[in-house]
Amino acid sequence: MSYNKITSKDLEQLRSFIRDEDRFITKPTVHWDHDQFKTVRAMPDLVIQPTTNEEVEKVVKYASDHHIPIVPRGNSTGLMGANLSVDGGISLDMIKMNKILSYEPNNLTMTVQAGIRLKDMEEFLADKPFTYMPAPAMHWATIGGNVDTNAGGLKAIKYGVTREHIRELKVVLANGKLYKFGAKAVKSSSGYSLKDLIIGSEGTLGVVTEVTVRLYPRPKEIINALIPYPTLTQAIKSVPAILASGVVPTTVEFMGRKVIDLWESYANQKFPVSEGNGFIIVGIDAFTKGEVEAELKQVLETVKQFDAGKAVVLAADSDEAKLIWKAREELLLAIQKSTPMMDEVDISVPIDHIPDVLKRIDELEKEVGMRIPNFGHAGDGNLHIYLCSDDDSKEVFDKKSKEVITELYKKAKEVDGNMSGEHGIGYAREPYFEDYYGKDYVEMLRKIKLAFDPNDIINPDKVFPMHG
Amino acid sequence: MSYNKITSKDLEQLRSFIRDEDRFITKPTVHWDHDQFKTVRAMPDLVIQPTTNEEVEKVVKYASDHHIPIVPRGNSTGLMGANLSVDGGISLDMIKMNKILSYEPNNLTMTVQAGIRLKDMEEFLADKPFTYMPAPAMHWATIGGNVDTNAGGLKAIKYGVTREHIRELKVVLANGKLYKFGAKAVKSSSGYSLKDLIIGSEGTLGVVTEVTVRLYPRPKEIINALIPYPTLTQAIKSVPAILASGVVPTTVEFMGRKVIDLWESYANQKFPVSEGNGFIIVGIDAFTKGEVEAELKQVLETVKQFDAGKAVVLAADSDEAKLIWKAREELLLAIQKSTPMMDEVDISVPIDHIPDVLKRIDELEKEVGMRIPNFGHAGDGNLHIYLCSDDDSKEVFDKKSKEVITELYKKAKEVDGNMSGEHGIGYAREPYFEDYYGKDYVEMLRKIKLAFDPNDIINPDKVFPMHG
Repeated sequence: MSYNKITSKDLEQLRSFIRDEDRFITKPTVHWDHDQFKTVRAMPDLVIQPTTNEEVEKVVKYASDHHIPIVPRGNSTGLMGANLSVDGGISLDMIKMNKILSYEPNNLTMTVQAGIRLKDMEEFLADKPFTYMPAPAMHWATIGGNVDTNAGGLKAIKYGVTREHIRELKVVLANGKLYKFGAKAVKSSSGYSLKDLIIGSEGTLGVVTEVTVRLYPRPKEIINALIPYPTLTQAIKSVPAILASGVVPTTVEFMGRKVIDLWESYANQKFPVSEGNGFIIVGIDAFTKGEVEAELKQVLETVKQFDAGKAVVLAADSDEAKLIWKAREELLLAIQKSTPMMDEVDISVPIDHIPDVLKRIDELEKEVGMRIPNFGHAGDGNLHIYLCSDDDSKEVFDKKSKEVITELYKKAKEVDGNMSGEHGIGYAREPYFEDYYGKDYVEMLRKIKLAFDPNDIINPDKVFPMHG
Repeated sequence: MSYNKITSKDLEQLRSFIRDEDRFITKPTVHWDHDQFKTVRAMPDLVIQPTTNEEVEKVVKYASDHHIPIVPRGNSTGLMGANLSVDGGISLDMIKMNKILSYEPNNLTMTVQAGIRLKDMEEFLADKPFTYMPAPAMHWATIGGNVDTNAGGLKAIKYGVTREHIRELKVVLANGKLYKFGAKAVKSSSGYSLKDLIIGSEGTLGVVTEVTVRLYPRPKEIINALIPYPTLTQAIKSVPAILASGVVPTTVEFMGRKVIDLWESYANQKFPVSEGNGFIIVGIDAFTKGEVEAELKQVLETVKQFDAGKAVVLAADSDEAKLIWKAREELLLAIQKSTPMMDEVDISVPIDHIPDVLKRIDELEKEVGMRIPNFGHAGDGNLHIYLCSDDDSKEVFDKKSKEVITELYKKAKEVDGNMSGEHGIGYAREPYFEDYYGKDYVEMLRKIKLAFDPNDIINPDKVFPMHG
């Protein structure tokens, strides 16, 4: 698809829509050319930082009418280049559209502008009886970005992902009009759920400007346990048994000794357990201490049959609990520091197939000659698998990566999983999408994209190819 | 839209796709001309009862190619005429496509054909540690029908509605091809969620043939309480306070003295509490008895400030608990028996606006001169409001109903609610849809419908008008 370049006349017109000069950036710096991963780089021609729905409406309408690409952008914590202006044009940086519009405890909802960061929502809610339950590890991501990728986080097993916590969205479509999708009510059986179509669409269908989230009563009691096993496979196999026992943990994260070693050298700290090659961190929440203790007791009883070692039980606010969650949240950084170049696959598979996938990763490490550390969410089957270049040249690394990515997608497809659990397809994985999901399926997605955005100007060249 | 009538040549062709003669019904009886409510009546020209995906594919393709309407149908427990052949053509009765295809406890999923009834799923799961959590009151509804209306049920406040419990769908689209939407994995950030577009689409986008549901660990302990209040408003106002106290009940149902009186004469039984004009039934589940008791204690403490009377606390399997849930499930039948003709509105509103809506109902009873009994889900804001003809003629009743329906939708829209929480729009409410959601919004729905079904042959004239 070819687009128009921004002319001086366009600049003049667009400038007239934005009240403040400092939110209209005609010479974007390197800040706007990459995301967290830096594997994709692309510079927009213009950055606009709107603060109101009206500004977004005018800018999108103008871009649409003048065939200029426009790419919504949050705080750029993405990994797959979804928010980069790969065709040039306008980067619509939402970070200053960051207000809390209403807090409605009697309806268990809160409405915010899309550019607010999760950490700011957390801070606002800290002294209230309610919380926003999804818990993506990136607290400085924006809620709009979370909606666009349907961010998962650590609590999906019990509380679901972003999708389950969004009641209503305000979205500017390519025609420059603001739409309300969903409602502040809990239930709907009133026509197609366009809200659910927007969630996870990686900003390709419209620009999300306001989000009404569900508030959830904050759990009174939380307990965590770190459980070591002789092997990672045993650790993972214990998870369905825990659930069959009637316990639904808030979170079950898994990690192997290899990534723990990387974290220890990254953080220059000792992990609290030295025995074992595979670990799960189990979190449990409830209203009473008796309940979390009883559930944990059941978990520790259940895991015995999988040769679990001595668990470290941690009260929610203990220093040891904080250290373990810190380690979990820093695993990505630890891996990133261990290698000059890195790429990632975050397939999501049926939980009973996680061991198969780990076996395939071990094989690929040998077959391809690449270090592939990984960890993930044992409760929901979402794996974070990192491809490390180590001493390989960029050329060799790219070649090896392509092979590993292809093989891992093949495996995920074979067991009825998804290409991405929470990091999205973006620009980096778009070339693999049609092969994974098939031509007929992608043809349906194209029709929907064109129903929303007939000129393909909103975040083009992302997720799937518009021409098969 | 005008369609082709079924010819003898069509019959011959269609007959060749179906193995058994008794599943090809050329002279449909009255069984196929109505749903639970009987307000809409329409006879199909032909009924086909498929048993395989291949049969569905062939029949849909033929109907599409020959411009014959085709309407999927479950066990016909719907209320809004969504499954009736209002344009003639083929009724695709899914009731014999009712097999359990796989039970996957290690992945917490179960895959069934779309025509299986909820009660058959419940029976299959009865001796297993897992359950299908949503709890629509109609146990003989099919899972396919539940998907098509995004059925809500009694447990939405804690466990969500049907949408949150569907992992994967197999759907035959108008082109006669079988598509897989979703996956057996928990998380996805891999392109538009077509699965979520199908859920709640009332069979207008394609024919759902297979459903993979999420299995949930069966709660070990359940406790219920029936709490009386001096007024229904006080009963409802206590609900947000219960949640703010940190307790998330499985269910909170509300009902007023008027519907209790109706039920008492319907069932010829006494309701267990004689004091009070408003009631909530609170259900609580957890892993331990201590937890459910502590949560209930908190609830009873919280409701004091709303002048609650003495609660009746009920163990899960007690006779009194069964009686109360029986009363709750029979409310619709009790109201139905009290009047020759009846209609219904099931708006879903923000929970803090339920009292406003109840006040508006009281006003309308006087303004319009109609008895309007109601009850509903206090935890999620979904109200079931019944319009009773009593001694009015059909003509007068229709006129009054139109006024009441219009006014209630106006109220729901004003407080940012939805037209329907769980019963759908179907045929009966289609005339109100565009006025409620607006022309621009409906135009988006039309584009999506046409992306899936360019000739508008799958369940036409339902939910919203195809021509504005």
